[in-house]
Amino acid sequence: MPYERHNIRKMLGYVPGEQPNTTDVIKLNTNENPYPPAEAIMHTLQDIAAEALRRYPQSDARDFRRVAAQVHRLEPENVLAVNGGDELLRLAITTFVEPRQAIGVAEPSYALYRTLAEIQDCPLAKVKLPDNWSLPEDFIEKMNAAAAKLVIITNPHAPSGHLTPVPRLAEIAAQLHGVLLLDEAYVDFVDPQAGYDSMPLVRQFANVLILRSLSKGYSLAGLRFGYGLGAGSLIEPMLTKTKDSYNVNAISQRLAMAALQNRATVSRTWAAVRSERSRLQNALGQLGFLCLPSQSNFLLAEVPEGMPKDAATIYEELKQQNIFVRYFAEPRLQNKLRISIGRPEENDILLNGLSRLLDGVSTQ
Amino acid sequence: MPYERHNIRKMLGYVPGEQPNTTDVIKLNTNENPYPPAEAIMHTLQDIAAEALRRYPQSDARDFRRVAAQVHRLEPENVLAVNGGDELLRLAITTFVEPRQAIGVAEPSYALYRTLAEIQDCPLAKVKLPDNWSLPEDFIEKMNAAAAKLVIITNPHAPSGHLTPVPRLAEIAAQLHGVLLLDEAYVDFVDPQAGYDSMPLVRQFANVLILRSLSKGYSLAGLRFGYGLGAGSLIEPMLTKTKDSYNVNAISQRLAMAALQNRATVSRTWAAVRSERSRLQNALGQLGFLCLPSQSNFLLAEVPEGMPKDAATIYEELKQQNIFVRYFAEPRLQNKLRISIGRPEENDILLNGLSRLLDGVSTQ
Repeated sequence: MPYERHNIRKMLGYVPGEQPNTTDVIKLNTNENPYPPAEAIMHTLQDIAAEALRRYPQSDARDFRRVAAQVHRLEPENVLAVNGGDELLRLAITTFVEPRQAIGVAEPSYALYRTLAEIQDCPLAKVKLPDNWSLPEDFIEKMNAAAAKLVIITNPHAPSGHLTPVPRLAEIAAQLHGVLLLDEAYVDFVDPQAGYDSMPLVRQFANVLILRSLSKGYSLAGLRFGYGLGAGSLIEPMLTKTKDSYNVNAISQRLAMAALQNRATVSRTWAAVRSERSRLQNALGQLGFLCLPSQSNFLLAEVPEGMPKDAATIYEELKQQNIFVRYFAEPRLQNKLRISIGRPEENDILLNGLSRLLDGVSTQ
Repeated sequence: MPYERHNIRKMLGYVPGEQPNTTDVIKLNTNENPYPPAEAIMHTLQDIAAEALRRYPQSDARDFRRVAAQVHRLEPENVLAVNGGDELLRLAITTFVEPRQAIGVAEPSYALYRTLAEIQDCPLAKVKLPDNWSLPEDFIEKMNAAAAKLVIITNPHAPSGHLTPVPRLAEIAAQLHGVLLLDEAYVDFVDPQAGYDSMPLVRQFANVLILRSLSKGYSLAGLRFGYGLGAGSLIEPMLTKTKDSYNVNAISQRLAMAALQNRATVSRTWAAVRSERSRLQNALGQLGFLCLPSQSNFLLAEVPEGMPKDAATIYEELKQQNIFVRYFAEPRLQNKLRISIGRPEENDILLNGLSRLLDGVSTQ
């Protein structure tokens, strides 16, 4: 007789993107920042004292929260430090959604949302995105009709890179009956000219929770550090009740502070990614892919009908060349590839590999 | 209208032991190992490359699990790496206990068990421990009568340090209807002469899950690293379904491997703690405290009726001397103090402080 709960037994579990053990690959499949973490972060790591490991860390990460509050012009009570953004997603469900109450998501979006809902034994209320990936007119209506206690919007959206503007988010927050979680894991790559700033939503609405991650923007996927921003009344139950008592370790807290304190340096990698994003989008277009603009550090490239190979084949053949991109075997995405923006030389290798397998000749 | 669930709103949350920010205190209140982490662990930290932070860590911590399996003569499928032992407690509840099913604990024990049960909206089935802190005869019967899906036994017990022997645990595992979780956070301090080895339970029973932590034994409370050991059928749903997808960061995985690979060095701190534990137990006895033997890195000192000051007062007056011990304001413990074993010089300061406040004169 298995001991696990019925809902756990029947669910499948999230499968993370491939993480090949060798460094001898072009890895454009899991949206890491292609540039190394800032030197100041590595210096902070070198300076960790044995005593910081021997003792318990701050259970409330108060020093980090003070720094994050300054950066975002909020108060520390508006900030929650988490062991990777995934923890905030889990905590929001644990804290705000009873088992069997609905969780609202756009479809497609981050597959982990479904996994976390299944763990809490909650149904997903799914709203299909149109071909331009924008939230449909009746999004709010449908979410309220499904009595969604928590609605998660990935912004910029993954896997498309589409950005929903703040006025539309404000409209959703104002009318939604439940909590609105904006998963901004990729927000650092948004073009500053877009003028996107969601912080006023935190100040204005009691039901807006924003997820930030250091994984992509700060080149710290290995560190597992994210944070939540929201009204004190949303943050407080997660901070004092539902998070593990020491959820973020002493090293992570210090490195995360160093990361935010070195935003100016780190932001150069964001500009470099944006520049390569434009170039790659154009080059993929020239190869025949359909590629909408993205505000994130990846592009969703559609393989059109007339191409000699389909997306699954291209994915496999790139992999044989040690080039990893992401392929999702699901209806809306099965003719598409999600390609993380790499360094210029990595993107060149990708483009070269694509040309080779598409027409058998190299472009270089 | 608050957004949090009803059970979350009404619960209190766990309050961790005080962590004074200054280093100028004698800190014997949260059971840290008084000796620094092994040098090999600090060297491993110095050697972390930027690339290990830029990329995602192993989601299944397979390298660590292989090392842990070797140490415990189990298979990697019997091992789960967690972000502090607290995560394993949470995962066991999430995975094996439906909301409103009972979780069994001895009383008193680690206060976090109650908090985690409340988050899952589960009642606690509590069995009171007798004055010698051993599990009562009818423990199994009571747990099965309460239909406990998960029973947690802290072994060695906290806050008493009492050790339940393996044959008794085997009897419990064999007869219990639910999962038996042995919280061995303090097991490294057990006297080797006690011959305690719970690994045969993992090999023999499909319902035994063992929690290990690096916080105390390995002087790594700041790192948040623990692991679970159990039958593959217990580990698998937590590993592939209910844990956060990248629950343990890249630094923690490497330091944890270094820790287990340096057990021989680290074990010298365990011997030193045991030696001081005997000395402190005797000295506390001479000061008039009632102090049962402990197999952990703390002693539970009872303040007898005739003492001039009660436990709460002694706790407060020690704190005024910058000496922190743990006081629990609950019925069974309100005449007791839990005192972590420090380095010899720290224990001397404690003993001196105690004599001073008990009779106004120093012993030195």
